[in-house]
Amino acid sequence: MVVPETPSQLRNAIRIDVISVIPGFFDSPLDNGLLSIARRKELADIYVHNLHDYGLGRYRQVDDSPFGGGAGMVIRPEPVFACIEALKAEREYDEVIFLSPDGELFEQSMANRFSRMHNLIILCGHYKAVDERIRQKLITMEISIGDVVVSGGEIPALFLMDALVRVIPGVLGDSESALTDSFQTELLDCTYYTRPAEFRGMKVPEVLLTGHHSNIEQWRSENALERTRKRRPDLLDKECLELKNKIT
Amino acid sequence: MVVPETPSQLRNAIRIDVISVIPGFFDSPLDNGLLSIARRKELADIYVHNLHDYGLGRYRQVDDSPFGGGAGMVIRPEPVFACIEALKAEREYDEVIFLSPDGELFEQSMANRFSRMHNLIILCGHYKAVDERIRQKLITMEISIGDVVVSGGEIPALFLMDALVRVIPGVLGDSESALTDSFQTELLDCTYYTRPAEFRGMKVPEVLLTGHHSNIEQWRSENALERTRKRRPDLLDKECLELKNKIT
Repeated sequence: MVVPETPSQLRNAIRIDVISVIPGFFDSPLDNGLLSIARRKELADIYVHNLHDYGLGRYRQVDDSPFGGGAGMVIRPEPVFACIEALKAEREYDEVIFLSPDGELFEQSMANRFSRMHNLIILCGHYKAVDERIRQKLITMEISIGDVVVSGGEIPALFLMDALVRVIPGVLGDSESALTDSFQTELLDCTYYTRPAEFRGMKVPEVLLTGHHSNIEQWRSENALERTRKRRPDLLDKECLELKNKIT
Repeated sequence: MVVPETPSQLRNAIRIDVISVIPGFFDSPLDNGLLSIARRKELADIYVHNLHDYGLGRYRQVDDSPFGGGAGMVIRPEPVFACIEALKAEREYDEVIFLSPDGELFEQSMANRFSRMHNLIILCGHYKAVDERIRQKLITMEISIGDVVVSGGEIPALFLMDALVRVIPGVLGDSESALTDSFQTELLDCTYYTRPAEFRGMKVPEVLLTGHHSNIEQWRSENALERTRKRRPDLLDKECLELKNKIT
């Protein structure tokens, strides 16, 4: 059972209400890995709502053919309005997010910002589309995970929740670990090695074994810069531009 | 149980071997939604391997502290080499994919290309990093879902699998539905409406109710172009550039 029967009244925690036509999809991701840790620590309270509970008629219909014809099904307005209005009657929401490939591209700064919010609704699309009137009237932010189409908003919702929960203080064991990630510094993270120091003839760079902290820090900075230059030169351009803007 | 006991010998289907430290994460996503449909239709055969099965010593250790110090844990080479070598002894793989925010950005064209492959390995990172020697020796492609850090490769792996399985012919009920998606034409998809024709005073555009096919097609083209111009002008620039390159 994904949805606790009694909503806990958490302090300094985020509440996320996810709306989906396949709520069972979320069962194991909420019970394994980071989302389960955040829930156990009572830093994130995640409720998954079945859109079919708000469906029409005997068969709890939530979708219908698109006007104008064409393949695929479109989610009808009534169930989504009913579900979101029921949630809004209970509390105020910071954002009502719809995940869609034509939304605004999801970035680390967005995850950081969301992590400081209190109540979020995430509507997962499914089938071909959702009726445009839902997007116009209910949705406050449309977010895309990238220029790729997937079958619904469920996986993008997991991506968004994991990214935002990860930067809530206390969720990770060692908060330093999140701060040194790629994109928190506009650079890619450096290269990492662990035991054994030699594996099938492949050796760990000497400097990392010396225990000489300032040399190690220097090696890591150079390595991160070099990786970024090779793999993502656009990030360096971006950083350069931001520095320029600060100076002028 | 995610992994079938007897590997089915499927024809014209893709086999994906996913390696994870939290294999239970995948249980419900593989049994709900598109991945479950593709598996039932025997068009995708997905096996999730527990990296701990290849772990070291009594506690099946898979990670250790990074050389040079710092927060977070790093996945050791031995378990990953053992797991991937065991798989490679059984069959040839088209790609060994590692999901990482410093990899190549995942795009629709990649999903289309992967969908025609036969055997893929997807290694999900977890904790701080994986030992660099794994990336150098075993991985043939490093893929990023975007400039955002999540807790592991599990959600990115789901994203990648859903996107590629979605374009395998026969997985979607109506293959036309995938072809008219955003990014398959370099444009965003148009706006969709379904019943009721009027909802709380909000009306569906007249033309969609007329049944006049060529007018509807024209409205949809203009709508898609207009949406793209407003939301993603960069896609139009890209299309323009590609047209130019074709001409010259």
